[in-house]
Amino acid sequence: MNEFELIRRLTRDLPSNRHVVAGAGDDCAVLDLEVPNSEVLFKTDSVVEGIHFTKDTAPERIGHKALARCLSDIAAMGGSAISVLVTLALPTGFDPKSIEAIYTGMTELAKRYQVSISGGETTSNPERLLISIAALGLVPKGKSVLRSGGRPGDAIFVTGELGGSIQGRHLEFEPRITEAKWLAQNFQIHAMIDLSDGVASDLRHILNQSKVGAELLSDAIHISRAARSQARAESSAKPPLLAALTVGEDFELLFTVASKDAVPLLDAWKKKFPKLRLSCIGKVTAKPGIRLNDKTGSRELTLHGYMHFAQS
Amino acid sequence: MNEFELIRRLTRDLPSNRHVVAGAGDDCAVLDLEVPNSEVLFKTDSVVEGIHFTKDTAPERIGHKALARCLSDIAAMGGSAISVLVTLALPTGFDPKSIEAIYTGMTELAKRYQVSISGGETTSNPERLLISIAALGLVPKGKSVLRSGGRPGDAIFVTGELGGSIQGRHLEFEPRITEAKWLAQNFQIHAMIDLSDGVASDLRHILNQSKVGAELLSDAIHISRAARSQARAESSAKPPLLAALTVGEDFELLFTVASKDAVPLLDAWKKKFPKLRLSCIGKVTAKPGIRLNDKTGSRELTLHGYMHFAQS
Repeated sequence: MNEFELIRRLTRDLPSNRHVVAGAGDDCAVLDLEVPNSEVLFKTDSVVEGIHFTKDTAPERIGHKALARCLSDIAAMGGSAISVLVTLALPTGFDPKSIEAIYTGMTELAKRYQVSISGGETTSNPERLLISIAALGLVPKGKSVLRSGGRPGDAIFVTGELGGSIQGRHLEFEPRITEAKWLAQNFQIHAMIDLSDGVASDLRHILNQSKVGAELLSDAIHISRAARSQARAESSAKPPLLAALTVGEDFELLFTVASKDAVPLLDAWKKKFPKLRLSCIGKVTAKPGIRLNDKTGSRELTLHGYMHFAQS
Repeated sequence: MNEFELIRRLTRDLPSNRHVVAGAGDDCAVLDLEVPNSEVLFKTDSVVEGIHFTKDTAPERIGHKALARCLSDIAAMGGSAISVLVTLALPTGFDPKSIEAIYTGMTELAKRYQVSISGGETTSNPERLLISIAALGLVPKGKSVLRSGGRPGDAIFVTGELGGSIQGRHLEFEPRITEAKWLAQNFQIHAMIDLSDGVASDLRHILNQSKVGAELLSDAIHISRAARSQARAESSAKPPLLAALTVGEDFELLFTVASKDAVPLLDAWKKKFPKLRLSCIGKVTAKPGIRLNDKTGSRELTLHGYMHFAQS
């Protein structure tokens, strides 16, 4: 039983009630609390020392990353974050100045998007720092962009450049809050997710929930400079394209729209966000799985990112 | 700078917005999301292996405790929990069966109070299990019972018996959800808190937020059988009264009401909850600090529970 199977099993029979519009299985839970014209988004996300940052990462950047990840999830539902609570699980002997610096990193980001930090708690986790953020947001009623809305024929888009986030971007990325809200308000986005684990994994979440597949065009995937230089520097590093598709923490937006909306969306995007690339990287297919097409043929992209040349 | 000073410093300048009715400093944050006639309660709470439970605690009980603590906080505001998210930070090699058992413990409690478990996440915390629960609740608008409402002359009440929770109760307590809701609906409760750290600490939260003090009557404090037997068994254990006042995790309700409401409340309580003791343990005073009175005189109860005979 792997983690995904376990989670699926655990979340199958969770208690629900009349308030739950969407529970486990999307970027956020969606709740109906009878807010006029809105639904409530509810999300938690953690970062752990040794996994999401190292012992010597500057605490301001840890705080920024912890909050940015959670705001990115709210954004990927087409919603706006309202309020967060901060849980700090502190290792033995943790410097109070570092706690203040963590809060500084979070506060600067929160203020930029009018998000309140409404409390939380500190507890002890002797061996390592762990930060968990709980976030509440609002989304126009019935307009939350779920993972399950992808349809065959949809165009698949991704913002920015992929890969190489470990070089630094994962600690300083700006969550795509403005862009996601603009997308949700101006176009009918069928499905959206933020890229935390890489396209090969996160696109699969959309495809599985939507019961569809996808064909991607290798040439359309914009690989970051960081991913290219990393591949050159380390002989053991993944080739840049594989890194761009399978390495996580890009925190870009991945979404699908009806093919008829693809060109108008691209045109409008270029006017609105001239500095941020938007790439159409492929299309949704009725056939399950992810195929990666280039001049040399068609390959399958598996969950863990390994590619096999097509049998057919 | 101790933990309380640090938290006070950190939480002084946290970003807020128009939705925040009450932020850091109470059992829950209170948010106005324009829910008709209601405000939203928002809370997180964590339990950590080695602190709140041991490595050999049955996982069902760990799950129960993790959720019960958080529901107890929502109850202490006079609200009703609606939905929770569960963050499991799992040590290396943690048994998937134990994960299922943790969920079983939480699910049974959640179902009893119609609380949905709407997702969450698992992450890794190599050395020890940590569970963080985020909870959302609703409370009638303007009726959340804050810590700041205590007034000189108020009667101070506590439910149940105090002390000795470590003998087992801390893992199996039923949060006082039904009782707290009944209190908030039927009486004007001035201030309320759930006892997580002991009366000496938690009453002080109410007194500090309300800018008042208190006089307690030693004889009125009902000490649990577990606290008495523990004191007898261990010569190093605190005397039962000190244990009852300073040892945490009772998760009983501590609240204040106007003195004119004290007798009617006690009478109504006995009819409604004949099996659960409610004790009037003292009164709120204008003078700060907590004084503990008995036949032999008046002593001061300090933050850490040590008593000094009064100078005067």
